Amino acid sequence: MSASIPRPPLVISMGDPAGIGPEIVCQALQRHPEWWPDVVVAGDAAHLRRADACVGAQLPWQPVASPADAVGGAGPRLWQACDAWPLVQWGRVSREAGCMALASIEASARAVLRGHARALVTAPVHKEALSLAGCPHPGHTELLQALAAEHLGCDVADLPVRMMLSNPHLKTVLMSIHVSLRHALDSITADGLRQTLAIVWRHFERLGRPSVRVAVAGVNPHAGEGGLFGREEIEVLQPVIAALAAEGRTVFGPFAPDTVFWRAMQGEFDLVVAMYHDQGLIPVKLFGLEEGVNTTLGLPMVRTSPDHGTAFDLAGTSKADSASLVAAIREAMAASATLTS
Amino acid sequence: MSASIPRPPLVISMGDPAGIGPEIVCQALQRHPEWWPDVVVAGDAAHLRRADACVGAQLPWQPVASPADAVGGAGPRLWQACDAWPLVQWGRVSREAGCMALASIEASARAVLRGHARALVTAPVHKEALSLAGCPHPGHTELLQALAAEHLGCDVADLPVRMMLSNPHLKTVLMSIHVSLRHALDSITADGLRQTLAIVWRHFERLGRPSVRVAVAGVNPHAGEGGLFGREEIEVLQPVIAALAAEGRTVFGPFAPDTVFWRAMQGEFDLVVAMYHDQGLIPVKLFGLEEGVNTTLGLPMVRTSPDHGTAFDLAGTSKADSASLVAAIREAMAASATLTS
Repeated sequence: MSASIPRPPLVISMGDPAGIGPEIVCQALQRHPEWWPDVVVAGDAAHLRRADACVGAQLPWQPVASPADAVGGAGPRLWQACDAWPLVQWGRVSREAGCMALASIEASARAVLRGHARALVTAPVHKEALSLAGCPHPGHTELLQALAAEHLGCDVADLPVRMMLSNPHLKTVLMSIHVSLRHALDSITADGLRQTLAIVWRHFERLGRPSVRVAVAGVNPHAGEGGLFGREEIEVLQPVIAALAAEGRTVFGPFAPDTVFWRAMQGEFDLVVAMYHDQGLIPVKLFGLEEGVNTTLGLPMVRTSPDHGTAFDLAGTSKADSASLVAAIREAMAASATLTS
Repeated sequence: MSASIPRPPLVISMGDPAGIGPEIVCQALQRHPEWWPDVVVAGDAAHLRRADACVGAQLPWQPVASPADAVGGAGPRLWQACDAWPLVQWGRVSREAGCMALASIEASARAVLRGHARALVTAPVHKEALSLAGCPHPGHTELLQALAAEHLGCDVADLPVRMMLSNPHLKTVLMSIHVSLRHALDSITADGLRQTLAIVWRHFERLGRPSVRVAVAGVNPHAGEGGLFGREEIEVLQPVIAALAAEGRTVFGPFAPDTVFWRAMQGEFDLVVAMYHDQGLIPVKLFGLEEGVNTTLGLPMVRTSPDHGTAFDLAGTSKADSASLVAAIREAMAASATLTS
């Protein structure tokens, strides 16, 4: 008699098997046995079992051939989602590790897009290994955007996404991510802000929170001090915010960047739209890296990840902390529960 | 018999008398009677007495005609450092308030520059009131720089200054302050960084800390990721840091901006050089505005101030908190004690 599965499971991609990904996945599941029936881990079985042994988790893995397969026991499902390569060395960049990481993400994302899993949590990958494996994308976000566009049959440009970083104190959504600060400044446009806000609202409306209070940070010191130190606030941001507020949207600003995050922490706003990568990430990361969760907004699926990298220096030592991954799994479970309820 | 004064006192300028300056000065002194023999408050007597009554401090003021005057009692000295105007309305911008604030700063700064006082702590001024009073400078920093250059008989350009913001967790020195972010980016040069670092070291050497560990933040996300997201790190920052480190200076970086402040908080560095206003002020202000102290580096005198403005909405209510001013006074006392010891 097989266990009944009330809804599609959550899928966790193992990340680069030379990094801490497999270890933190095993540690997170060891700490949360209540998640086992609801979780599929996508990756290479041998590398996941090595990590399991490393952290001493002794998980009762249930091998499955596809994420939606029912299983006989209550353990976490282990889905061989990539070709099986010989064990790679911990802490070393390799094409083999990149191939396993890449194939696991691709299979996991497609499973979620097709409805065989309800949300995706990704363990960290190594940019260089992905590149050696032939992946043309610099990271998860761009890769998932491309896979989603392919699934929908649309152009990547028609599927704009935004990165949201959150911890228990603060949420921020970034207007741009991996571009130079000069390039980020050039890309601050009225269309870009409208698009960001539309993506934010679509996400929170799906979560049943249409009145999320959104603060928009300024670009310049003191939000330009009335035009004295820059005019982006007057010419670009204010008109968009005023127009949307007039339509009843709960959007406010632009505010002085050096106090808006503090104000959000005090409860005045639910999230802050940051004009560039470091404006949003400096305050979020000041709370340490343990609790940060990265959520990709704009994709036709729920996707979260921990807010740290592969930590090759820690791989294989069992010293890596799964706290951020645990927070990412919890966030994905909450978001997908709301969506499917 | 007059009290003996072992060394020149510390002078506190009252700030804009329509703002919270006079009130927080009275509250700070009420809380710290041990400072009274060592402190001169520069401003208008009637406005300071009104603030004293407002907060209920009942300070035993000792009127003096100049900051170095000995007094018969142990109370704080009250120095009429400006023309006496009729009482201005709390919370309203006026030329009269600007004139009193401006004259008090000028007299205080000159007293320190001439050795009649050993350090300057400035209560907040209102930019618009200062401007109405004919002050061509946007704030304290630029005004003090001009007064110091006048005193030294040099050009303002030969007296570069930098703003340092500190709280108990973090210290940051800013490469630029009140300019647009685009302008700030243009002004990130090798000369500018060398100048900033020279100013930092001169300050800490005078405090007896020549080996202060200085981290330089990058400009771009991930400090440029090896040139992928901007080249300022490779072309401008790295060569300066490498050259100074080779000379034995304790300077490190450039580091990813989104984690360098966290690393400094963990004790890895004593201060962070921030590339632009908000890069440094976002993390410092995230701890709240109560404990922040602004120190001007590069001036031929010790000068600190609280990290907030005139708060016209609170003026006259006795609700303003003097914590940041208290921290600024403490910092100025410590810095000038080291300098004169």
